Amino acid sequence: MEYTLTPIGYVHSMIKTRDQAPKQGTEGAPSAEISILPEYRDALDGMEPGSRLILLTWFHKSDRTYLRVHPRGNVNIPKRGVFSTRSPDRPNPIGLHEVTLTKISNLNLEVTPLEALDGTPVVDIKPAI
Amino acid sequence: MEYTLTPIGYVHSMIKTRDQAPKQGTEGAPSAEISILPEYRDALDGMEPGSRLILLTWFHKSDRTYLRVHPRGNVNIPKRGVFSTRSPDRPNPIGLHEVTLTKISNLNLEVTPLEALDGTPVVDIKPAI
Repeated sequence: MEYTLTPIGYVHSMIKTRDQAPKQGTEGAPSAEISILPEYRDALDGMEPGSRLILLTWFHKSDRTYLRVHPRGNVNIPKRGVFSTRSPDRPNPIGLHEVTLTKISNLNLEVTPLEALDGTPVVDIKPAI
Repeated sequence: MEYTLTPIGYVHSMIKTRDQAPKQGTEGAPSAEISILPEYRDALDGMEPGSRLILLTWFHKSDRTYLRVHPRGNVNIPKRGVFSTRSPDRPNPIGLHEVTLTKISNLNLEVTPLEALDGTPVVDIKPAI
């Protein structure tokens, strides 16, 4: 059984490579812009600046074959199962990012902080609870 | 562009229909068991009972064509864009569930509380931060 994800938008960020990306948004990540595809315009209805959101992204540069990794990519920490880490290398490389929506203008959302790479596909947006 | 998700396990729950499911885990959801597929055994390495996890599921009973919904399925609340709701009906119907891992035995995880339906595919597990 397989399921298909379709991007609903893309990340535009000054972070261009995995080396430049903080491990978590709270570790000094910059703000970023999300451009939503026009066909999802109605799904933005009711979004308000200042609200906390969870962005779900697709880590398009990941290696999906990894089951165990060094946490934080640090070879001095023993390997562990990927389900007890936030490694982007995992069987289904979905990223979770809690951000604040600072501005919304037509199909563009400005959010902060976001550690995702420039060009990362966004697959869902939910209100944080 | 499309991306493919593969289940890494399945939910076993006393909740058999959407009518029976609380809207959120914190609204009286029961505990549930997750059976992980054998090929992902190594990815469980290092998981500890008592830890807080985020389960990502695939809402397999969802309608992906909805862009606006009545929040909480309540027709008395005006419709809103799905990205400002937690509706399971959305373009990429990924569920997010924060749970406590209460027991781990071989490939079976006991978690609580979980509002997902029996048979729901699980696509990822991450530590809560």
